[in-house]
This record gives sequence, structure tokens and C-alpha cells, in this order.
Amino acid sequence: MTLDTPKGTRDVLPEQKILRDFIISKVKEGFETYGFLPLETPSIEMYDTLASKYAGGSEILKETFKLTDQGKRKLGLRYDLTVPFARFIAMNPNIKMPFKRYQIANVWRDGPIKLGRYREFIQCDGDIAGSSSMMADTECIALAESVFTSLGLDFEIKINNRRLLNGILEYVGVKEKDFNSVIISIDKIAKIGEKDVREELINKKIPDKKITELFSIIKTKGTNEDILIELKNKVSNKNANDGIEELEEVFNYSNLMGLKNVKLDISLARGLSYYNSTVYEVYLINSKINSSVAAGGRYDNMVGNFMESKTQVPAVGISFGLDVIYDAIYDETKLKKTLTKVYIIPIKTMNEPLKLLKILRDNKINSDIDLSQKGVSKNLDYADKYGIPYVILIGDNEIKAGRFKLRDMKTGQEEMLSEKEIIEKLRNK
Amino acid sequence: MTLDTPKGTRDVLPEQKILRDFIISKVKEGFETYGFLPLETPSIEMYDTLASKYAGGSEILKETFKLTDQGKRKLGLRYDLTVPFARFIAMNPNIKMPFKRYQIANVWRDGPIKLGRYREFIQCDGDIAGSSSMMADTECIALAESVFTSLGLDFEIKINNRRLLNGILEYVGVKEKDFNSVIISIDKIAKIGEKDVREELINKKIPDKKITELFSIIKTKGTNEDILIELKNKVSNKNANDGIEELEEVFNYSNLMGLKNVKLDISLARGLSYYNSTVYEVYLINSKINSSVAAGGRYDNMVGNFMESKTQVPAVGISFGLDVIYDAIYDETKLKKTLTKVYIIPIKTMNEPLKLLKILRDNKINSDIDLSQKGVSKNLDYADKYGIPYVILIGDNEIKAGRFKLRDMKTGQEEMLSEKEIIEKLRNK
Repeated sequence: MTLDTPKGTRDVLPEQKILRDFIISKVKEGFETYGFLPLETPSIEMYDTLASKYAGGSEILKETFKLTDQGKRKLGLRYDLTVPFARFIAMNPNIKMPFKRYQIANVWRDGPIKLGRYREFIQCDGDIAGSSSMMADTECIALAESVFTSLGLDFEIKINNRRLLNGILEYVGVKEKDFNSVIISIDKIAKIGEKDVREELINKKIPDKKITELFSIIKTKGTNEDILIELKNKVSNKNANDGIEELEEVFNYSNLMGLKNVKLDISLARGLSYYNSTVYEVYLINSKINSSVAAGGRYDNMVGNFMESKTQVPAVGISFGLDVIYDAIYDETKLKKTLTKVYIIPIKTMNEPLKLLKILRDNKINSDIDLSQKGVSKNLDYADKYGIPYVILIGDNEIKAGRFKLRDMKTGQEEMLSEKEIIEKLRNK
Repeated sequence: MTLDTPKGTRDVLPEQKILRDFIISKVKEGFETYGFLPLETPSIEMYDTLASKYAGGSEILKETFKLTDQGKRKLGLRYDLTVPFARFIAMNPNIKMPFKRYQIANVWRDGPIKLGRYREFIQCDGDIAGSSSMMADTECIALAESVFTSLGLDFEIKINNRRLLNGILEYVGVKEKDFNSVIISIDKIAKIGEKDVREELINKKIPDKKITELFSIIKTKGTNEDILIELKNKVSNKNANDGIEELEEVFNYSNLMGLKNVKLDISLARGLSYYNSTVYEVYLINSKINSSVAAGGRYDNMVGNFMESKTQVPAVGISFGLDVIYDAIYDETKLKKTLTKVYIIPIKTMNEPLKLLKILRDNKINSDIDLSQKGVSKNLDYADKYGIPYVILIGDNEIKAGRFKLRDMKTGQEEMLSEKEIIEKLRNK
């Protein structure tokens, strides 16, 4: 038997997992500070739910892992956290709205393995169901600003509005039935470039002149206010006006909340067809990472479609990409290899070492001890290999003196300290 | 389409998830304080790994969810965290030993749904590979004592030793080839009673007289020391002597660490065949929960068998049962419905409310605000329904006074406070 992990999956080593857990803790703290409550849904959903025409669509369904239980029910591993959220809301119509929930959990997609794409990955989603106010959209944007600030990253939040995009398409003469398809092409400009998108649109039978005009409009540059003024002067139809009004509301709330990183970008489209209003993506500045690190938008027509009553349930959400944030922060030279602060090396006695170990742990100081009766130099090597910052040596001399030898593994400096002094010193490290 | 979650799975509501997350945080803190490092392995393993004859055995394999990827590879959802751990160690033979890792993650078993059994559930496992010292076993026991103490539960840690059990079986004349089978029967005494176990053993062709003698020995009562003395006097063979020596070592280390809840129980067996030395289970005292809430033991012969070199890798571990701990702690009347501390109700203005909201959140006070322009009484009802402890009302009067109305939702008491006073008050709640 050859041992391996399945294609597209991997083991996350402690030094990697420590950094991942750090990011997750910041995202979780952000969600909770912003009033989102935790919800857990099963990893496995009924296949019918995942395959619903209101769910993720045929592209994603092709990548869904299928399974059956012993009752031969058709099941699937969830490919995102949005569809299970919609299913949950639909099954719990009496939940008090607006309902703000977050979920940080694995999702699975049996797709092609490209650089940095995995078949099992963690999504960190926050969604608000039951509010059509642009204040809810602003909550998601404010949350993103808070999380990336707390992670110490430089970023920009690009924002746009699907109604405005529709209005622009209408203005340049694209037919309504082609809106979604054209928007999905526009979404690729940053990734594949204008030339390839133009080709794609020509294949979709959009006349060359319309494409040129469309490109000229979505490339409008300037402050958020400048761009909106220019658009108002040029494009004037119901869709565009509604979209501009919604954007103005979001900017108004954002200003009141003191958000500084929100930038209107008319070329931003988002690849998913269910968005109907605000859309946004977060990009890092001065980073090796070019793809978005968080993204989301408003999808007012999805949740209600899961309900028998077809009641409309407005919804807006944001998803943080754990892997891509990890790649942005990852710095091999700064990786913490351990969470353990101190390692005890007993020399020919276990009595005092075990007593001290217990006291350190009772004081919530992450501590470890030699478990293989190694010699001192092998023990120092072990502590060094794991990057444990302090070591305590306890032998006859130390016991007689009533003090213990604390060694700083980085500087090699040693001090003879009392139990109390050691606790004091390590607790604040 | 009828919406549902798959059989044996469920949605975990915020008020349940908050309690689950609290338990997980305590277990995680315990692992880290005791020097265990986090490791993450994929949910999906190669089916061959899960089906290895050194893995969980045929009973558990029957309950394994099978799936394939698009490359038609045979895969399975992991049924525990121990087999992936063994697979990881075998794939990383150069990892510095002893290696202490923990993993808190979902596992899946497509088994019968009985009361409290789910097909997707969370395991919290800590394991130490590469140490044959009884100090490693004591680490697991000490960790359990620390975690259950921090959860505020009364408990007893029952401990036994498989070598000792083998020695007893040898003494009463059970054949060596029947050791494992008899031990698995003994394990059921607490669950199904002596009478049924006797019947099971008779079916396994163990003579009635031997069963009687076996039962009389494993029911030996007294202090840990008394029981060992009595056993030493009665049973004297290599297996029993080795087992007793190992138990004495564990008791010695436990005493030095000041552990108070470790109780020798010769009838404790554990249902898994791979244990070869120390075994332990944690039971709650004065609780509605009768089953064990954590359990583990030493399995020195499993990990190495996954390696080509067949090098022996001694290992010992403990697993905490999240669901059963949850059931033990669950008290409907004490359930926290929210993590949000304060809810802002704006009255005809958004300016000051949004500024205050941002300041509260920047101070890490979990805060929320009306997102649907509801009236005051509907907003109070909303905050009440979600169990949010404080509400801030902001209207013209408050703005003029430069103070905000803070309402304690439990007592109904209202105070006019400055921004600074509100932060001070809520930060310490």
C-alpha cells in the first residue's frame, strides 16, 4: 500500500496550522464584533438541495462530490456555505429577521487542481438575511475593513452595483437576455485582459462598437463622487439610477462609519449570476497576491426561491478566502513552529520537574517536558528543533538552591529563578 | 423539492453553537497548555488507508462513507482522527519524536442512528507518538483532569492496563488467541450487565468456571494500592507483572503531578483491539450522562505498521467526546442566545449611531444596529428576542445632551451615559 493524501488535499503541519488558526481567530473575532452569530450546518447536504436551480449552477454542480448513505439517499458534500445557509433559512421561516450568521468551515470541489486550488478548502462566510437596507451591505464592507486592518494588511475594497452595470449595458444597447452573460465576461477583464474579453463578447454576438463604448464607460476613473457624477451625466435609465442611488447610500453609511478603503470600480462584476445589487471584492496593495482575498454582494432572489411560499428574503454576504490570506501573510522566516513556551529538562529526578510542570500549566503557561529520558544536550536539541523559546533545567544543584535554571533558547542566556519569578516572567511573554 | 438535512446530521443553531464553541475553546486551551501542537489532515482519505488491516477494523469500515473523485480514485470520509494521524506519521518518518499533536475535527460514520448518535460528529483528539514512557500516558490523563476541571464538571478517570488484563486471562486459563475477543466482551459489563456478558463469553466457548473466576478478580475493590497488592498476591505471570509495573509508574507520576481523580478499575477494557497497555475512560459523577466523556489508551503497534520499514512507533492518545460533554453541560435555562453585547436603536438619525457603533466595535465590544428602520418598540422586541443584554437609544434629545441612553434589557433600568462611560461599562461585562 502506498500512503498518500487524496489529490487536491493536503496535511497542514503545525507551523502552518498555527498561522491558519491565527487568521481564523481574527476573522471569527471580526464576525462576532460585528454582530454575526455562529451557525453550523452539516458537511453533507441532500443532493437535490445542492442541485436546485436556485443554487450554485451547473458549473459548480459538476465539481460536487456525490455519495450515498446506507438508505441509498443521494447526498453531496457542500461546495459552498451560501446554499446551505439559504436552505437553513428556508427550513426556519420563523427565525427573527434580520438574521446575521457566520460559518467557518470546509467546502469541497472536485475541480481541476491549479496552483493554489484545493479540492477541500475552508470558507469563512458572513451573511445577513432579511434586510434590504444598504446599511446591511455596508456592514459587510465595514467588517472586511476591520478584519484586514486587524491582520495588518494594506488593502482596497472595490465596490460596484449590478443594477448600475445592467443600466450601462442597456445604455450601450446590449439586450436584456444577454446581461448576465456579458457581466460574467466583464468579470474576467482583470484576470485575462481586455483583448480576450472583447473576443469573448464578439463570440457572444455583441457588436464591436457596443463593446468599445462599454469598455470606455467601465474604465471611468476618478474619486467615487467624480465617477458617479460622470455616469449620471451620461447614462440615465431606471436601472442605472437605482444602482447609483444604492451606491450613494453605501458611500454615505461608509463615510459615517469612517471607512477609508472603499473604491468604486465600474468594471467589477463578480462571476456569480445570483447577485442583483451591490458587489464588492477586497484586493491587497503591495502584495504578491493578485486575486481577491474576500468578496461578496447582495443576492435578494436566492433564499426565497428555496421556500415553498416563495417569499422574497433579501440577503447580502461576504466570504473571506482563508488560503489566499494565508499565502499573503505567509513568511517562512517568521513562522511560529510551536505554541509551547517552555520545555522542562529533568536531570536525574522527576519529583520537582513534575511539580513545577503542573504549576506552570495551572498558570496557563503552555509547557512541555522530556518524555523519553534523553540527556541534556539531546533535550536542548529537541527544544531548539521545535522552536520552544525557553527551557528549564532541574537537577540536584537547582533543587538544593530552591531555584531553577531558565535558559533563553534564542540568546543562550541562563538565569537562576524561583518558581514565582519564572511564572511572572513567562506569563507575560 | 422537500428541504431537509441528511439523516443523522443536523443544523447547529447559534445558541447551541455558542456552547459548543465554548467547550471546544476549553479543550483547545487544554491541548495547548499541555504542549500539543495543532495538525490538520484532510476529511477525505484514500479508501485503502481507511481499509488497512492495521486501521479501525471491519465493523467501522462498514460504516465508512465512500466516494470517488473525477480521476475515479477510491476515497472515503475519515471515520476517526487516529488512522489519519498514523498515516501522517508514517508519511513523515523524519518528524522529531516525541511528536504531540491535537486535532479537533469532523468525522463521519454511516451507522445506525440511536439516541444521541450522529453520522457527522466532532472528535477532539490528542496523541503522543514516539514515547514509550508511562509519563506520556500520564500526560494524557493529566490533560483530561485539567480540561474537565476547567469545564466545572465532577468526574473520575478510570484506568486499567491491557497487559494486566491479559495476565489475568492467562491466570484464569483463557487461551491467548481468545484474549482480544474476551476483552471486547468484558468492555460491555458496564453497558449490558454481567449476565449478558457471561452469556456472550459462554457463546465464545469460555468455560463457566473460568468466567466466574475472571469476574471475581476484575471486581476487586479498594484503593488503587490495595487492588494492586491483592492482584500481586493472586496473579503472578509476566503479563500481569508488566501491567502492574506500568500502572504503578502512572500512579507515581500522577501523584507527583497532584492528580486527584485517577481510579484503578480492573473491569475497564475499551472496545478497540489495537490498545496494548494503559487504557482509560473519563466518567462524570452526579450527571445524567452515563457514558464516558473522554477515553483513550496506548497503542504501540499501530503506527509502525503503516510504515514500509515497520519500525515500531509507540503511541498513546486521548479523545474528548464533544457531543456527550455538550449534553452534560447543556441547560436550556442558561443557554446564551447571542455573543452580541449591545444593540443600537437610532431614532430618526444615522449619523451619531453609526459613529458610536464604529467606536464600540473598535473597542472590541460586540455590537449591532437596527438594519430595517424599525420603530423603537419593534427594535426592543428584536433585542429581547435575541437576548442582547444592552440597548442604546439615540435620538435628538440624546444628541443634544451629548449622552446616550443605555438600557439594561434584564432590569429595564436606563442610564444617560457619555460615550466613554458606555465603553467603560460594556468592556467589562
